[in-house]
Amino acid sequence: MTDQPADGLMPFHAMEILKRAKAIEATGRTVCHLEVGEPGSPPAPRVIEAVRQALPQAQGYTNAKGMAELRDGLTAYYASQHNVAVDPDSILCTMGSSAGFIIAFHTAFRPGAKIAITRPGYPAYVNTLLGLGFGMVEIPVEAANGWHLTGADIAAAHAAEPFDGLLFASPANPTGASVDRAGLTNIVATCQRLGVRLISDEIYHGLDYRGPSVSALELTRDAIVINSFSKYYCMTGWRIGWMVLPDDLVRRAEILQQNLFISAPTLSQVAATVALGERDYAEEQKALYAINRGLLNDGLRGLGFDIGNPSDGAFYAYAGISRFSNDSMRFCETLLEEAGVAATPGTDFDRTNGGLYVRFSYAGRRDTIERALERMAGFLR
Amino acid sequence: MTDQPADGLMPFHAMEILKRAKAIEATGRTVCHLEVGEPGSPPAPRVIEAVRQALPQAQGYTNAKGMAELRDGLTAYYASQHNVAVDPDSILCTMGSSAGFIIAFHTAFRPGAKIAITRPGYPAYVNTLLGLGFGMVEIPVEAANGWHLTGADIAAAHAAEPFDGLLFASPANPTGASVDRAGLTNIVATCQRLGVRLISDEIYHGLDYRGPSVSALELTRDAIVINSFSKYYCMTGWRIGWMVLPDDLVRRAEILQQNLFISAPTLSQVAATVALGERDYAEEQKALYAINRGLLNDGLRGLGFDIGNPSDGAFYAYAGISRFSNDSMRFCETLLEEAGVAATPGTDFDRTNGGLYVRFSYAGRRDTIERALERMAGFLR
Repeated sequence: MTDQPADGLMPFHAMEILKRAKAIEATGRTVCHLEVGEPGSPPAPRVIEAVRQALPQAQGYTNAKGMAELRDGLTAYYASQHNVAVDPDSILCTMGSSAGFIIAFHTAFRPGAKIAITRPGYPAYVNTLLGLGFGMVEIPVEAANGWHLTGADIAAAHAAEPFDGLLFASPANPTGASVDRAGLTNIVATCQRLGVRLISDEIYHGLDYRGPSVSALELTRDAIVINSFSKYYCMTGWRIGWMVLPDDLVRRAEILQQNLFISAPTLSQVAATVALGERDYAEEQKALYAINRGLLNDGLRGLGFDIGNPSDGAFYAYAGISRFSNDSMRFCETLLEEAGVAATPGTDFDRTNGGLYVRFSYAGRRDTIERALERMAGFLR
Repeated sequence: MTDQPADGLMPFHAMEILKRAKAIEATGRTVCHLEVGEPGSPPAPRVIEAVRQALPQAQGYTNAKGMAELRDGLTAYYASQHNVAVDPDSILCTMGSSAGFIIAFHTAFRPGAKIAITRPGYPAYVNTLLGLGFGMVEIPVEAANGWHLTGADIAAAHAAEPFDGLLFASPANPTGASVDRAGLTNIVATCQRLGVRLISDEIYHGLDYRGPSVSALELTRDAIVINSFSKYYCMTGWRIGWMVLPDDLVRRAEILQQNLFISAPTLSQVAATVALGERDYAEEQKALYAINRGLLNDGLRGLGFDIGNPSDGAFYAYAGISRFSNDSMRFCETLLEEAGVAATPGTDFDRTNGGLYVRFSYAGRRDTIERALERMAGFLR
């Protein structure tokens, strides 16, 4: 599970742990799944019902950019949630945010360009960049600063090794760190001053526990914004997301979409259109995460994990394990085998210091978290 | 519609024509859609019913490679249709063949590598290769040879400009040309002799009108095979395909899938699993295409299009327009505006000689083709 193919590509350990967990379950044992960032609830009932209705008709490709209804809905979403006017023609519906990243990189840059990301950060960032032939610059963020990225961090990293783009997520995976408006303004201004194109990953938007999520679109029209229905709307397996492009990039992005992907899955576009109107349901899920968040953070702290304030957003606790181990992969493997608790080693998110951290997701059900804490209490004793 | 962004990327004119056709329809006029390669029928009724049943449950990500049931079904498909044993672990379920190409290129090659394709050929080949930073070598195929690619063509092109890979489709888009077993054996052997990695695009498999489709897997285990449920199983909008990897590439492909795409849409995997058992339905659709094929070819020939034997497979007629025009884009725009018939200019498939050709799809309904022929008769008079 630790093989390392050419050019720095690494397997996504969360997926490896999931695979191993499923093998354990196939033997009849139960596993508490705290390893993958997936909501425990299905999409809103009206979403399921709308898809059921559309099933006999919604078969063909859509317009490459996506159904007009969905893009109009997203325009309305930006007006109501962020008070910004976004032209539906600058919106591109994608096969999850995953396809959005590929389009973003190839729209704004050419292979060989360097894109900065935080460390720790979402592992697919590194692997997608390296896998597609881009360069990568890591900007370390620190637990002592709540894992927050600052304009000063960006400027210091750029001075040491210049880069062309910054891919930045708020709330962030695995730390849950979110920027407030002042923080994002600082990041946007720093990127503009340095001539760095910002890609703002907003897929955890809506899941901020300290205030409304701030979109880069409120501050600039030069950024590429990427978002998804996976997290807030509980639609991971539907593989549907979207991006908002600056005027100078929208045409190239559309052409790449036409050729690289044709269009996003039609039924998922139907589902997403309806999901936008189901924010009450999404807020109910968020309220459950908020309970889990307190429960998991307190529980982990009580067990001896090194953990600061609960994360600002998303649904992860990024916990220090220095009291137990400095090899998080081994720690997670043992935790899974002996205690039946699946978590993700920090090495997924940080190849330098990740051995000292483990990510626990609290997107699942409360009783799963309670049982996992009980099992860990026995295991760590 | 003929803008040309940097690095040779071109819009996919079929999609542009579709967009324009929809605008015309929005004014109340009818359009005969012969421009996009989409089956006129929905998936088999049992596919729809299975999705309806799975709707409340099938929400989360699957294993990166895809659901075990689907990969087992594909193994059974290769055993029954091609008499070859394919390990389910060498199969990767993808977001349409589109994502399969991205994974294939980045699994077998690194950006900058050169991959050969036929001219004419599927326009997304060129644009995806150039968009992702790969090099491209075109191998011309000729109407006089039924648009067939031969080992000699490959060797001659390679001698003039060496390349690392060959991406080859049979049946082909836009020509419908298919290789028989001897032809494919010759292509496979030529690639092996030259050290060229073959990517075999088999997405039109099942739609051969002169005999069973021959898979590269029957002849070699060094090729990457790409396939899709879009065409034979009438599932374009579901964005679900698969690839079969050689042993030396399967692990890297899995890691790329994990990071670039996570997993294919879950409901589409459910649908695809059931579709594999619905070949009787697919054969009924094929029988309709076979009728359309004769009708369209005879009709076009009668109208003065330059057209040889009906194509071997797929559902396209690639018709010469030299009697009418040498500017196929203009011809298609006028045909759409004045006659309400949408077709795809050959410039999508061939930047050199495509001005002299137009692609008509006969995947739609018989009455659409009949009406289109009537309208064209009036228009061309």
